[in-house]
Amino acid sequence: MTMLELLEKKRHRQALSQEEIAFFVQGCTDGSLPDYQISALLMAICFAGMNQEETAALTMAMAHSGDLVDLSRFGACSVDKHSTGGVGDKTTLILAPIVAALGGKVAKMSGRGLGHTGGTIDKLESIPGFRTALSAQEFLDQVQRIGVAVVGQTGNLAPADKRLYALRDVTATVDSMPLIASSVMSKKIAAGSASIVLDVKVGSGAFMKTQADGEALARQMVALGQACGRNMAALVTNMDAPLGCNIGNALEVQEASQVLRGQGCPQLRQLCVQLAAQMLCLCQGWPMAQSLENVESALSSGLAFEKFCQWVDAQGGDAKALTDFSRFPAPKVSADILAGQSGYLYAMDAQRIGEASVLLGAGRLRKEDPVDPAAGIVLHQTAGGFVEKGQRLLTLYASRPAALDAARAMLSGAWQFAQTPPQPAPLIYNRIG
Amino acid sequence: MTMLELLEKKRHRQALSQEEIAFFVQGCTDGSLPDYQISALLMAICFAGMNQEETAALTMAMAHSGDLVDLSRFGACSVDKHSTGGVGDKTTLILAPIVAALGGKVAKMSGRGLGHTGGTIDKLESIPGFRTALSAQEFLDQVQRIGVAVVGQTGNLAPADKRLYALRDVTATVDSMPLIASSVMSKKIAAGSASIVLDVKVGSGAFMKTQADGEALARQMVALGQACGRNMAALVTNMDAPLGCNIGNALEVQEASQVLRGQGCPQLRQLCVQLAAQMLCLCQGWPMAQSLENVESALSSGLAFEKFCQWVDAQGGDAKALTDFSRFPAPKVSADILAGQSGYLYAMDAQRIGEASVLLGAGRLRKEDPVDPAAGIVLHQTAGGFVEKGQRLLTLYASRPAALDAARAMLSGAWQFAQTPPQPAPLIYNRIG
Repeated sequence: MTMLELLEKKRHRQALSQEEIAFFVQGCTDGSLPDYQISALLMAICFAGMNQEETAALTMAMAHSGDLVDLSRFGACSVDKHSTGGVGDKTTLILAPIVAALGGKVAKMSGRGLGHTGGTIDKLESIPGFRTALSAQEFLDQVQRIGVAVVGQTGNLAPADKRLYALRDVTATVDSMPLIASSVMSKKIAAGSASIVLDVKVGSGAFMKTQADGEALARQMVALGQACGRNMAALVTNMDAPLGCNIGNALEVQEASQVLRGQGCPQLRQLCVQLAAQMLCLCQGWPMAQSLENVESALSSGLAFEKFCQWVDAQGGDAKALTDFSRFPAPKVSADILAGQSGYLYAMDAQRIGEASVLLGAGRLRKEDPVDPAAGIVLHQTAGGFVEKGQRLLTLYASRPAALDAARAMLSGAWQFAQTPPQPAPLIYNRIG
Repeated sequence: MTMLELLEKKRHRQALSQEEIAFFVQGCTDGSLPDYQISALLMAICFAGMNQEETAALTMAMAHSGDLVDLSRFGACSVDKHSTGGVGDKTTLILAPIVAALGGKVAKMSGRGLGHTGGTIDKLESIPGFRTALSAQEFLDQVQRIGVAVVGQTGNLAPADKRLYALRDVTATVDSMPLIASSVMSKKIAAGSASIVLDVKVGSGAFMKTQADGEALARQMVALGQACGRNMAALVTNMDAPLGCNIGNALEVQEASQVLRGQGCPQLRQLCVQLAAQMLCLCQGWPMAQSLENVESALSSGLAFEKFCQWVDAQGGDAKALTDFSRFPAPKVSADILAGQSGYLYAMDAQRIGEASVLLGAGRLRKEDPVDPAAGIVLHQTAGGFVEKGQRLLTLYASRPAALDAARAMLSGAWQFAQTPPQPAPLIYNRIG
């Protein structure tokens, strides 16, 4: 078997066999295949696609290309959540304590932010003292003890995916459904949870631009997880506007804390309740109505917030900061942006707002860049609401005045005003699984 | 401008601008672009294609990426021929002296064989003493003096094409019409002749399997050459069976010599007459009837053969070998293959026969392999003729008995017998230009 034969087949739109895909993934992992052959195959897959068997074989081979986290001690209770990436998406910070408070075991590996979407690890690290690097033993012990631990990805989880992802990024081969699905699912399967809930984002700020594409991706990932024996569900959700009111690392932890204490943006709360209920349906076997009821009661009783504090404390973070936001790093400069006219606010462009937050210092353009925990954006108005001319629309936070100017320029045209209220878009389009 | 932007565009089936293609070719030439981005773009082009403007821009940029041979001293008389590659194709050895004998100036760069197709340079080097490496001055002086010189390709002719071709070979991106057309024409344009005749092969032994594909490629290459101000014509010709009776380096020089002396395979002679007449129409401006008449008379008068001897002598070769074949290197072993049954011989598989000749030592699988000048195959029967059981079909020549066995195994099933004469396929399908 040679890589040239695989390339010839895919070039002529033929399916690759399981053995051929295993050969390919092995060659990516052990370094025997050169980048130029890998990138040529990735581009051929973008055009010719992969059928369900090929995608499943690719997912399994990548999942098994490195370490597999063993969560079998938690039986059916281990549960994970994955979002395909959005702006202002702090749901993990809210879901994890809710689910842990209700008996789920959230042993989660998360990533850092890149480009216009943020990363949970950067957000957690904005909490003074929070450690995201735990040993395997510390990680598992903490999950056993309090039901939740979130750490950065270890070095050898799905290394084949790591190599492919790096090449896709520089060869315009990111937006292929089988490549996205297998990349996500290989990491989730290697990460070991028995149940997995997916949050597939659709809209201007997401990879998937249409509901149909989002549903197709969700269906494909659910099928991949089920083929590997995992309990799966997916929500297809709206990412036209940022999620919640705060964008930026410390700002998002603060908003998560507000939601867990019964405040914060209602849309964000609603999505978290739905996702948490899905997770508990899968890992506890509860019917949906009971799951929803339990989630509401964990929130209203304060048990979920208590779990949040316990979690932050367990990983060395300052849990007092969750109620006293002055304990977070403070931004040096800030600026308000006011409404230039009166009208209904619509088309809050999530991608532009995410890119502005990167310019403010909240995210990174290159992997090696640092992030500013205090930088970010607070939205004072939500999409669809009526705004008077001169009212405060949003506030920008940064360390340098120049960053404020750059973000302001990026935001020009990121929203529009209408004289009639826009059609409200649903928050959750569909449930798959 | 970044390579990622070009990749995104082609990934989404958009056309690249002239500036973008110039940027790409410059990056291939100066080494600033990595192989993995180049191979990803090549694969995207295989799927998404290139329009006429893109292909012309790629051709021009590659032609200008290195040295341009200046043949302006020969005015309109310089004329080149290119074959897209076939088995037993020794037409250059026959055409060049015919055209030079009739006043054309053939200043030609040729390649070595790779895979199942042979190369003119390997064939010429089988003539004892023949030198294929001349200085630029020697090369031009010889063309001026006797009208013909053929040398190996110099180091810096279309270096961008060289890099692309090497990558295409290992990424299954060879069979793309715009990539084939621009690769051929960039080298031909850099090689400087005012007139160019293309011999586009169609059939089992060629890249193009159908007449329609061959005609499309011919049309594209003719248009590219005309856009660069060259006089162009193309013949689309049959390569289902090998061309002529001899395959192998010394064997092909011998057959060329036979044709120039009025002997040899009639089909081969006919194709050479037509190609030579096309070349003379372009470079001398003669009407076709006069061209054909002059070619026939150059052959029958012996002037063309005399020019062949003069050419071989000028490049240090033993011209006596052209009439005394015992002066060529002799094969060490040989074997006859006899007809296993009686019947009309049909479907002589050119590709299989070419691959058998490589196993005998006449060609190479890797660029660095040597070739055996004496190895090869002589066909005693032509496709379509009636053969009695036990009659000699062909003779294999090699240096080692093991090579004979390997070739014999490769040839199993390379021809078939029928009880009725097969429909004769035309030798020349069409003329374009």
